[in-house]
Amino acid sequence: MNILIVYAHPDPRSLNGALKDYAVEHLQASGHAVQVSDLYAMQWRPTLEAGETPGPEVLREQEKLLWADTVIFQFPLWWFSMPAIMKGWVERVFSHGFGYGIGEHSDRRWGDRYGEGTLAGKRAMLLITAGGWEPHYSARGINGPIEQLMFPIQHGVLHYAGMQVLPPFLIYRTSRMDEARFAAARAELGQRLDTLHSTAPIPFRRQNHGDYDIPALTLKNKVAPDQFGLEIHVKTQE
Amino acid sequence: MNILIVYAHPDPRSLNGALKDYAVEHLQASGHAVQVSDLYAMQWRPTLEAGETPGPEVLREQEKLLWADTVIFQFPLWWFSMPAIMKGWVERVFSHGFGYGIGEHSDRRWGDRYGEGTLAGKRAMLLITAGGWEPHYSARGINGPIEQLMFPIQHGVLHYAGMQVLPPFLIYRTSRMDEARFAAARAELGQRLDTLHSTAPIPFRRQNHGDYDIPALTLKNKVAPDQFGLEIHVKTQE
Repeated sequence: MNILIVYAHPDPRSLNGALKDYAVEHLQASGHAVQVSDLYAMQWRPTLEAGETPGPEVLREQEKLLWADTVIFQFPLWWFSMPAIMKGWVERVFSHGFGYGIGEHSDRRWGDRYGEGTLAGKRAMLLITAGGWEPHYSARGINGPIEQLMFPIQHGVLHYAGMQVLPPFLIYRTSRMDEARFAAARAELGQRLDTLHSTAPIPFRRQNHGDYDIPALTLKNKVAPDQFGLEIHVKTQE
Repeated sequence: MNILIVYAHPDPRSLNGALKDYAVEHLQASGHAVQVSDLYAMQWRPTLEAGETPGPEVLREQEKLLWADTVIFQFPLWWFSMPAIMKGWVERVFSHGFGYGIGEHSDRRWGDRYGEGTLAGKRAMLLITAGGWEPHYSARGINGPIEQLMFPIQHGVLHYAGMQVLPPFLIYRTSRMDEARFAAARAELGQRLDTLHSTAPIPFRRQNHGDYDIPALTLKNKVAPDQFGLEIHVKTQE
Protein backbone atom coordinates (compact mmCIF):
# COMPACT_ATOMS: atom_id res chain seq x y z
CA MET A 1 0.00 0.00 0.00
CA ASN A 2 0.88 3.66 -0.29
CA ILE A 3 0.68 5.26 3.12
CA LEU A 4 0.81 8.95 3.96
CA ILE A 5 1.48 10.07 7.52
CA VAL A 6 0.41 13.63 8.24
CA TYR A 7 2.29 14.43 11.41
CA ALA A 8 2.21 17.41 13.76
CA HIS A 9 4.54 17.68 16.72
CA PRO A 10 7.08 20.44 17.29
CA ASP A 11 9.73 18.25 18.94
CA PRO A 12 11.33 15.37 16.98
CA ARG A 13 12.67 13.91 20.26
CA SER A 14 9.16 13.57 21.68
CA LEU A 15 7.09 10.45 22.22
CA ASN A 16 5.26 11.41 19.04
CA GLY A 17 8.52 11.67 17.15
CA ALA A 18 9.57 8.21 18.34
CA LEU A 19 6.21 6.71 17.39
CA LYS A 20 6.31 8.33 13.97
CA ASP A 21 9.80 7.01 13.29
CA TYR A 22 8.70 3.57 14.42
CA ALA A 23 5.62 3.66 12.19
CA VAL A 24 7.66 4.63 9.13
CA GLU A 25 10.22 1.86 9.71
CA HIS A 26 7.57 -0.74 10.51
CA LEU A 27 5.49 0.07 7.43
CA GLN A 28 8.50 0.15 5.12
CA ALA A 29 9.75 -3.16 6.52
CA SER A 30 6.34 -4.60 5.64
CA GLY A 31 6.81 -3.50 2.04
CA HIS A 32 4.63 -0.39 2.04
CA ALA A 33 5.60 2.88 0.41
CA VAL A 34 5.51 5.68 2.97
CA GLN A 35 5.48 9.46 2.70
CA VAL A 36 5.46 11.78 5.71
CA SER A 37 4.15 15.33 5.82
CA ASP A 38 5.97 16.55 8.94
CA LEU A 39 4.11 19.83 9.30
CA TYR A 40 6.38 21.51 11.85
CA ALA A 41 9.52 20.47 9.96
CA MET A 42 7.94 21.76 6.72
CA GLN A 43 7.08 25.03 8.51
CA TRP A 44 3.59 24.61 7.13
CA ARG A 45 1.66 27.89 7.04
CA PRO A 46 -1.61 27.22 8.89
CA THR A 47 -3.52 30.35 7.91
CA LEU A 48 -5.99 30.17 5.05
CA GLU A 49 -5.93 33.60 3.43
CA ALA A 50 -8.82 35.48 1.80
CA GLY A 51 -9.43 34.24 -1.73
CA GLU A 52 -6.57 31.74 -1.51
CA THR A 53 -6.32 29.23 -4.34
CA PRO A 54 -4.08 26.16 -4.09
CA GLY A 55 -0.44 27.05 -4.67
CA PRO A 56 2.45 24.62 -5.22
CA GLU A 57 2.76 23.54 -1.57
CA VAL A 58 -0.97 22.80 -1.36
CA LEU A 59 -0.97 20.93 -4.68
CA ARG A 60 1.92 18.78 -3.41
CA GLU A 61 -0.16 17.75 -0.39
CA GLN A 62 -3.18 17.02 -2.58
CA GLU A 63 -0.99 14.82 -4.80
CA LYS A 64 0.20 12.92 -1.74
CA LEU A 65 -3.42 12.33 -0.73
CA LEU A 66 -4.31 11.10 -4.23
CA TRP A 67 -1.25 8.81 -4.17
CA ALA A 68 -2.10 7.32 -0.77
CA ASP A 69 -4.29 4.31 -0.12
CA THR A 70 -4.28 5.04 3.61
CA VAL A 71 -3.64 8.28 5.48
CA ILE A 72 -2.59 8.39 9.13
CA PHE A 73 -3.06 11.65 11.00
CA GLN A 74 -0.73 11.69 13.99
CA PHE A 75 -0.90 14.41 16.62
CA PRO A 76 -0.94 15.18 20.34
CA LEU A 77 -4.42 16.06 21.57
CA TRP A 78 -4.30 19.78 22.32
CA TRP A 79 -7.46 21.30 23.73
CA PHE A 80 -9.44 18.24 22.68
CA SER A 81 -8.62 18.63 18.99
CA MET A 82 -5.73 18.56 16.53
CA PRO A 83 -2.94 21.17 16.78
CA ALA A 84 -3.56 24.41 14.89
CA ILE A 85 -0.87 23.60 12.35
CA MET A 86 -2.75 20.45 11.30
CA LYS A 87 -6.13 22.21 11.32
CA GLY A 88 -4.57 24.73 8.96
CA TRP A 89 -3.33 21.90 6.77
CA VAL A 90 -6.93 20.70 6.45
CA GLU A 91 -8.24 24.20 5.75
CA ARG A 92 -5.76 24.81 2.94
CA VAL A 93 -5.40 21.31 1.42
CA PHE A 94 -9.08 20.30 1.55
CA SER A 95 -9.82 23.22 -0.76
CA HIS A 96 -13.00 23.95 -2.71
CA GLY A 97 -13.34 21.37 -5.48
CA PHE A 98 -10.99 18.98 -3.68
CA GLY A 99 -12.17 18.54 -0.10
CA TYR A 100 -15.62 20.08 -0.48
CA GLY A 101 -17.90 21.56 -3.12
CA ILE A 102 -17.90 18.37 -5.23
CA GLY A 103 -20.85 17.22 -7.35
CA GLU A 104 -24.37 18.47 -7.88
CA HIS A 105 -25.85 20.80 -5.28
CA SER A 106 -29.60 21.14 -5.64
CA ASP A 107 -32.81 20.46 -3.75
CA ARG A 108 -32.43 16.79 -4.73
CA ARG A 109 -28.74 16.29 -4.09
CA TRP A 110 -26.36 17.97 -1.69
CA GLY A 111 -23.02 17.23 -3.29
CA ASP A 112 -20.69 14.25 -3.14
CA ARG A 113 -19.71 14.20 0.50
CA TYR A 114 -20.07 12.13 3.66
CA GLY A 115 -18.99 8.86 2.09
CA GLU A 116 -18.35 10.18 -1.42
CA GLY A 117 -15.88 12.68 -2.81
CA THR A 118 -12.32 13.06 -4.01
CA LEU A 119 -10.88 10.71 -1.40
CA ALA A 120 -13.51 7.96 -1.66
CA GLY A 121 -12.10 4.47 -1.27
CA LYS A 122 -9.12 5.59 0.81
CA ARG A 123 -8.70 4.77 4.47
CA ALA A 124 -7.82 7.12 7.32
CA MET A 125 -6.80 6.63 10.93
CA LEU A 126 -6.07 9.04 13.75
CA LEU A 127 -3.02 8.30 15.91
CA ILE A 128 -3.38 10.41 19.03
CA THR A 129 -1.45 10.94 22.25
CA ALA A 130 -3.19 12.45 25.27
CA GLY A 131 -1.92 13.57 28.65
CA GLY A 132 -5.13 12.62 30.46
CA TRP A 133 -6.19 9.21 31.65
CA GLU A 134 -8.35 6.84 29.63
CA PRO A 135 -11.34 7.04 32.03
CA HIS A 136 -11.37 10.84 31.61
CA TYR A 137 -12.28 10.17 27.96
CA SER A 138 -14.70 7.32 28.61
CA ALA A 139 -18.48 7.25 28.14
CA ARG A 140 -19.01 9.10 31.45
CA GLY A 141 -15.61 10.80 31.67
CA ILE A 142 -15.37 14.54 32.29
CA ASN A 143 -13.62 15.35 29.01
CA GLY A 144 -16.31 13.63 26.97
CA PRO A 145 -16.01 10.30 25.14
CA ILE A 146 -13.03 10.42 22.80
CA GLU A 147 -15.06 9.19 19.81
CA GLN A 148 -17.48 12.09 20.25
CA LEU A 149 -14.68 14.63 20.71
CA MET A 150 -13.18 13.33 17.46
CA PHE A 151 -16.50 13.45 15.58
CA PRO A 152 -15.78 16.85 13.97
CA ILE A 153 -12.55 15.38 12.56
CA GLN A 154 -13.47 11.76 11.85
CA HIS A 155 -16.94 12.50 10.50
CA GLY A 156 -16.71 16.19 9.59
CA VAL A 157 -13.38 16.09 7.75
CA LEU A 158 -12.43 12.51 6.83
CA HIS A 159 -15.81 10.86 6.19
CA TYR A 160 -16.94 14.16 4.66
CA ALA A 161 -14.22 13.89 2.02
CA GLY A 162 -15.15 10.29 1.28
CA MET A 163 -12.60 8.39 3.36
CA GLN A 164 -13.27 5.26 5.37
CA VAL A 165 -12.29 6.03 8.94
CA LEU A 166 -10.71 3.31 11.06
CA PRO A 167 -11.07 3.42 14.85
CA PRO A 168 -8.41 5.74 16.26
CA PHE A 169 -5.25 4.53 17.95
CA LEU A 170 -4.83 6.28 21.28
CA ILE A 171 -2.10 6.50 23.88
CA TYR A 172 -3.16 8.08 27.18
CA ARG A 173 -1.26 9.45 30.17
CA THR A 174 1.79 10.31 28.14
CA SER A 175 3.60 12.00 31.04
CA ARG A 176 3.96 8.60 32.70
CA MET A 177 5.55 6.83 29.74
CA ASP A 178 8.34 4.51 30.85
CA GLU A 179 10.19 1.97 28.73
CA ALA A 180 7.76 -0.86 29.44
CA ARG A 181 4.71 1.21 28.52
CA PHE A 182 6.45 2.56 25.43
CA ALA A 183 7.33 -0.96 24.29
CA ALA A 184 3.73 -2.04 24.81
CA ALA A 185 2.37 0.98 22.95
CA ARG A 186 4.76 0.36 20.08
CA ALA A 187 3.73 -3.28 19.84
CA GLU A 188 0.06 -2.34 19.85
CA LEU A 189 0.66 0.29 17.20
CA GLY A 190 2.52 -2.30 15.12
CA GLN A 191 -0.55 -4.53 15.19
CA ARG A 192 -2.77 -1.67 14.05
CA LEU A 193 -0.34 -0.88 11.23
CA ASP A 194 -0.31 -4.54 10.19
CA THR A 195 -4.10 -4.57 9.90
CA LEU A 196 -4.75 -1.22 8.22
CA HIS A 197 -6.17 -3.00 5.18
CA SER A 198 -8.46 -5.33 7.13
CA THR A 199 -9.67 -3.31 10.12
CA ALA A 200 -13.38 -2.56 9.88
CA PRO A 201 -14.02 1.17 9.48
CA ILE A 202 -16.43 3.11 11.68
CA PRO A 203 -19.77 2.65 9.86
CA PHE A 204 -20.65 6.32 9.42
CA ARG A 205 -23.84 6.73 7.43
CA ARG A 206 -23.47 7.84 3.82
CA GLN A 207 -25.34 10.99 2.88
CA ASN A 208 -26.61 9.81 -0.49
CA HIS A 209 -27.73 6.28 0.37
CA GLY A 210 -31.25 6.88 1.59
CA ASP A 211 -30.88 7.57 5.31
CA TYR A 212 -31.27 11.36 5.08
CA ASP A 213 -33.99 13.69 3.85
CA ILE A 214 -32.63 16.14 1.28
CA PRO A 215 -32.21 19.13 1.47
CA ALA A 216 -32.93 19.27 5.22
CA LEU A 217 -30.26 16.58 5.68
CA THR A 218 -31.86 15.27 8.83
CA LEU A 219 -32.09 11.53 9.45
CA LYS A 220 -35.35 10.13 8.12
CA ASN A 221 -37.94 9.46 10.81
CA LYS A 222 -37.72 5.71 10.34
CA VAL A 223 -33.94 5.67 10.83
CA ALA A 224 -32.81 5.50 14.47
CA PRO A 225 -36.24 6.80 15.45
CA ASP A 226 -36.43 9.13 18.46
CA GLN A 227 -32.64 9.21 18.80
CA PHE A 228 -30.50 12.33 18.73
CA GLY A 229 -26.90 13.43 18.78
CA LEU A 230 -23.64 12.51 17.12
CA GLU A 231 -23.88 8.76 17.55
CA ILE A 232 -26.98 8.38 15.35
CA HIS A 233 -24.75 9.01 12.32
CA VAL A 234 -22.99 5.72 12.98
CA LYS A 235 -24.88 2.77 11.55
CA THR A 236 -25.75 0.10 14.07
CA GLN A 237 -27.53 -3.21 13.56
CA GLU A 238 -31.07 -2.09 12.76
CA MET B 1 -18.29 46.01 31.23
CA ASN B 2 -14.94 45.33 29.64
CA ILE B 3 -15.46 43.23 26.54
CA LEU B 4 -12.81 41.47 24.46
CA ILE B 5 -13.65 40.24 20.98
CA VAL B 6 -11.27 37.59 19.67
CA TYR B 7 -11.95 37.64 15.96
CA ALA B 8 -10.73 35.46 13.10
CA HIS B 9 -11.66 36.18 9.51
CA PRO B 10 -9.20 36.92 6.71
CA ASP B 11 -11.41 39.43 4.85
CA PRO B 12 -12.47 42.68 6.58
CA ARG B 13 -15.17 43.20 3.90
CA SER B 14 -16.84 39.90 4.80
CA LEU B 15 -20.09 39.29 6.64
CA ASN B 16 -17.95 38.55 9.68
CA GLY B 17 -16.14 41.85 9.30
CA ALA B 18 -19.44 43.72 9.13
CA LEU B 19 -20.79 41.92 12.19
CA LYS B 20 -17.62 42.58 14.15
CA ASP B 21 -17.73 46.29 13.30
CA TYR B 22 -21.38 46.40 14.30
CA ALA B 23 -20.68 44.62 17.60
CA VAL B 24 -17.89 47.05 18.50
CA GLU B 25 -20.03 50.11 17.73
CA HIS B 26 -23.08 48.71 19.49
CA LEU B 27 -21.17 47.79 22.63
CA GLN B 28 -19.33 51.11 22.78
CA ALA B 29 -22.58 53.02 22.27
CA SER B 30 -23.93 51.11 25.28
CA GLY B 31 -21.03 52.38 27.38
CA HIS B 32 -18.85 49.27 27.38
CA ALA B 33 -15.09 49.31 26.89
CA VAL B 34 -14.14 47.10 23.95
CA GLN B 35 -10.88 45.59 22.77
CA VAL B 36 -10.55 43.49 19.63
CA SER B 37 -7.91 40.88 18.91
CA ASP B 38 -8.21 40.72 15.12
CA LEU B 39 -6.03 37.67 14.61
CA TYR B 40 -5.57 37.92 10.84
CA ALA B 41 -4.86 41.66 11.01
CA MET B 42 -2.36 40.99 13.83
CA GLN B 43 -0.76 38.25 11.72
CA TRP B 44 -1.01 36.05 14.77
CA ARG B 45 1.41 33.10 14.65
CA PRO B 46 -0.72 29.98 15.20
CA THR B 47 2.04 27.45 15.80
CA LEU B 48 2.95 26.55 19.36
CA GLU B 49 6.66 25.76 19.29
CA ALA B 50 8.56 23.18 21.36
CA GLY B 51 9.27 24.50 24.84
CA GLU B 52 7.61 27.83 24.08
CA THR B 53 7.08 30.14 27.05
CA PRO B 54 4.81 33.19 26.81
CA GLY B 55 6.51 36.04 25.00
CA PRO B 56 5.32 39.66 24.80
CA GLU B 57 2.55 39.02 22.25
CA VAL B 58 1.15 36.17 24.33
CA LEU B 59 1.35 38.18 27.56
CA ARG B 60 -0.58 41.01 25.86
CA GLU B 61 -3.40 38.59 25.03
CA GLN B 62 -3.40 37.20 28.57
CA GLU B 63 -3.65 40.76 29.92
CA LYS B 64 -6.62 41.42 27.67
CA LEU B 65 -8.30 38.29 29.03
CA LEU B 66 -7.64 39.35 32.62
CA TRP B 67 -9.01 42.83 31.81
CA ALA B 68 -12.19 41.50 30.22
CA ASP B 69 -15.45 40.70 31.99
CA THR B 70 -16.81 39.02 28.87
CA VAL B 71 -14.99 37.51 25.90
CA ILE B 72 -16.64 36.98 22.51
CA PHE B 73 -15.00 34.52 20.13
CA GLN B 74 -16.13 35.33 16.60
CA PHE B 75 -15.29 33.08 13.66
CA PRO B 76 -16.63 31.35 10.57
CA LEU B 77 -17.20 27.63 11.14
CA TRP B 78 -14.48 25.89 9.12
CA TRP B 79 -14.55 22.11 9.15
CA PHE B 80 -16.89 22.16 12.13
CA SER B 81 -14.47 24.04 14.37
CA MET B 82 -12.69 27.37 14.75
CA PRO B 83 -10.16 28.50 12.12
CA ALA B 84 -6.58 27.32 12.69
CA ILE B 85 -5.42 30.84 13.52
CA MET B 86 -7.82 30.98 16.48
CA LYS B 87 -6.99 27.44 17.59
CA GLY B 88 -3.37 28.55 17.63
CA TRP B 89 -4.33 31.58 19.71
CA VAL B 90 -5.81 29.21 22.29
CA GLU B 91 -2.78 26.92 22.23
CA ARG B 92 -0.33 29.77 22.83
CA VAL B 93 -2.37 32.09 25.10
CA PHE B 94 -3.94 29.41 27.33
CA SER B 95 -0.44 28.44 28.40
CA HIS B 96 0.62 26.22 31.29
CA GLY B 97 -0.12 28.04 34.54
CA PHE B 98 -2.62 30.32 32.82
CA GLY B 99 -5.10 28.19 30.87
CA TYR B 100 -4.25 24.83 32.40
CA GLY B 101 -2.04 23.31 35.08
CA ILE B 102 -3.58 25.41 37.87
CA GLY B 103 -3.96 24.23 41.47
CA GLU B 104 -3.28 20.99 43.28
CA HIS B 105 -2.99 17.83 41.21
CA SER B 106 -3.19 14.71 43.33
CA ASP B 107 -5.33 11.63 43.84
CA ARG B 108 -7.80 13.84 45.74
CA ARG B 109 -7.87 16.88 43.50
CA TRP B 110 -7.32 17.27 39.78
CA GLY B 111 -6.48 20.94 39.52
CA ASP B 112 -8.61 24.06 39.28
CA ARG B 113 -10.40 23.55 36.00
CA TYR B 114 -13.85 22.94 34.55
CA GLY B 115 -15.53 25.79 36.39
CA GLU B 116 -12.47 27.07 38.24
CA GLY B 117 -9.20 28.57 37.07
CA THR B 118 -7.60 31.81 35.96
CA LEU B 119 -10.66 33.03 34.08
CA ALA B 120 -13.28 32.09 36.69
CA GLY B 121 -16.12 34.59 36.93
CA LYS B 122 -15.74 35.81 33.36
CA ARG B 123 -18.29 35.15 30.65
CA ALA B 124 -17.69 33.85 27.14
CA MET B 125 -19.82 33.56 24.02
CA LEU B 126 -19.18 32.11 20.59
CA LEU B 127 -20.37 34.15 17.59
CA ILE B 128 -20.35 31.80 14.62
CA THR B 129 -21.26 32.00 10.96
CA ALA B 130 -21.91 28.80 9.00
CA GLY B 131 -22.55 28.13 5.33
CA GLY B 132 -24.87 25.20 6.00
CA TRP B 133 -28.53 25.30 6.92
CA GLU B 134 -29.82 25.26 10.47
CA PRO B 135 -31.47 21.80 10.13
CA HIS B 136 -28.11 20.34 9.07
CA TYR B 137 -26.90 21.23 12.58
CA SER B 138 -30.05 20.16 14.43
CA ALA B 139 -30.54 17.24 16.81
CA ARG B 140 -30.86 14.80 13.88
CA GLY B 141 -28.94 16.83 11.28
CA ILE B 142 -26.13 15.22 9.31
CA ASN B 143 -23.40 17.55 10.58
CA GLY B 144 -24.24 16.80 14.19
CA PRO B 145 -25.97 19.12 16.67
CA ILE B 146 -24.09 22.41 16.84
CA GLU B 147 -23.91 22.34 20.65
CA GLN B 148 -22.18 18.95 20.51
CA LEU B 149 -19.80 20.04 17.75
CA MET B 150 -18.88 23.04 19.92
CA PHE B 151 -18.40 20.93 23.07
CA PRO B 152 -14.60 20.70 22.66
CA ILE B 153 -14.49 24.52 22.57
CA GLN B 154 -17.27 25.54 24.94
CA HIS B 155 -16.58 22.84 27.53
CA GLY B 156 -13.00 21.83 26.73
CA VAL B 157 -11.50 25.31 26.42
CA LEU B 158 -13.81 27.94 27.95
CA HIS B 159 -15.46 26.07 30.83
CA TYR B 160 -12.12 24.31 31.38
CA ALA B 161 -10.44 27.66 32.05
CA GLY B 162 -13.21 28.67 34.44
CA MET B 163 -15.42 30.81 32.21
CA GLN B 164 -19.20 30.83 32.20
CA VAL B 165 -20.27 29.99 28.66
CA LEU B 166 -23.35 31.66 27.22
CA PRO B 167 -25.33 29.92 24.48
CA PRO B 168 -23.66 30.62 21.13
CA PHE B 169 -24.99 33.13 18.62
CA LEU B 170 -25.22 31.51 15.20
CA ILE B 171 -25.92 32.71 11.70
CA TYR B 172 -26.55 29.95 9.16
CA ARG B 173 -26.64 29.85 5.36
CA THR B 174 -24.30 32.77 4.98
CA SER B 175 -24.11 32.49 1.18
CA ARG B 176 -27.74 33.60 0.99
CA MET B 177 -27.35 36.75 3.06
CA ASP B 178 -29.35 39.63 1.60
CA GLU B 179 -30.00 43.01 3.19
CA ALA B 180 -33.15 41.92 4.97
CA ARG B 181 -31.52 38.87 6.52
CA PHE B 182 -28.44 40.89 7.46
CA ALA B 183 -30.59 43.52 9.17
CA ALA B 184 -32.43 40.79 11.08
CA ALA B 185 -29.18 39.08 12.10
CA ARG B 186 -27.74 42.39 13.25
CA ALA B 187 -30.82 43.14 15.33
CA GLU B 188 -30.73 39.70 16.91
CA LEU B 189 -27.03 40.09 17.65
CA GLY B 190 -27.74 43.48 19.21
CA GLN B 191 -30.18 41.85 21.61
CA ARG B 192 -27.62 39.23 22.58
CA LEU B 193 -25.02 41.95 23.16
CA ASP B 194 -27.50 43.90 25.30
CA THR B 195 -28.06 40.88 27.54
CA LEU B 196 -24.52 39.55 27.92
CA HIS B 197 -24.65 40.25 31.65
CA SER B 198 -28.03 38.59 32.24
CA THR B 199 -28.15 35.64 29.84
CA ALA B 200 -28.09 32.34 31.71
CA PRO B 201 -24.90 30.39 30.97
CA ILE B 202 -24.89 26.77 29.84
CA PRO B 203 -24.93 24.88 33.16
CA PHE B 204 -21.81 22.76 32.61
CA ARG B 205 -21.01 20.68 35.67
CA ARG B 206 -18.11 21.86 37.82
CA GLN B 207 -15.34 19.34 38.36
CA ASN B 208 -14.76 20.04 42.04
CA HIS B 209 -18.35 20.25 43.27
CA GLY B 210 -19.14 16.63 43.98
CA ASP B 211 -20.47 15.28 40.68
CA TYR B 212 -17.28 13.45 39.67
CA ASP B 213 -15.20 10.69 41.18
CA ILE B 214 -11.56 11.73 41.50
CA PRO B 215 -9.11 10.75 40.03
CA ALA B 216 -11.12 8.71 37.50
CA LEU B 217 -13.09 11.88 36.73
CA THR B 218 -16.13 9.94 35.67
CA LEU B 219 -19.59 11.08 36.71
CA LYS B 220 -20.65 9.46 39.96
CA ASN B 221 -23.10 6.61 39.51
CA LYS B 222 -25.93 8.52 41.14
CA VAL B 223 -25.53 11.50 38.78
CA ALA B 224 -27.39 11.16 35.48
CA PRO B 225 -27.46 7.40 36.06
CA ASP B 226 -27.15 5.17 32.99
CA GLN B 227 -26.57 8.14 30.71
CA PHE B 228 -23.56 8.63 28.47
CA GLY B 229 -22.01 11.14 26.12
CA LEU B 230 -21.29 14.84 26.01
CA GLU B 231 -24.67 16.05 27.20
CA ILE B 232 -24.38 14.46 30.66
CA HIS B 233 -21.87 17.16 31.56
CA VAL B 234 -24.61 19.76 31.34
CA LYS B 235 -26.65 19.96 34.53
CA THR B 236 -30.35 19.42 34.04
CA GLN B 237 -33.15 19.52 36.60
CA GLU B 238 -32.45 16.43 38.69
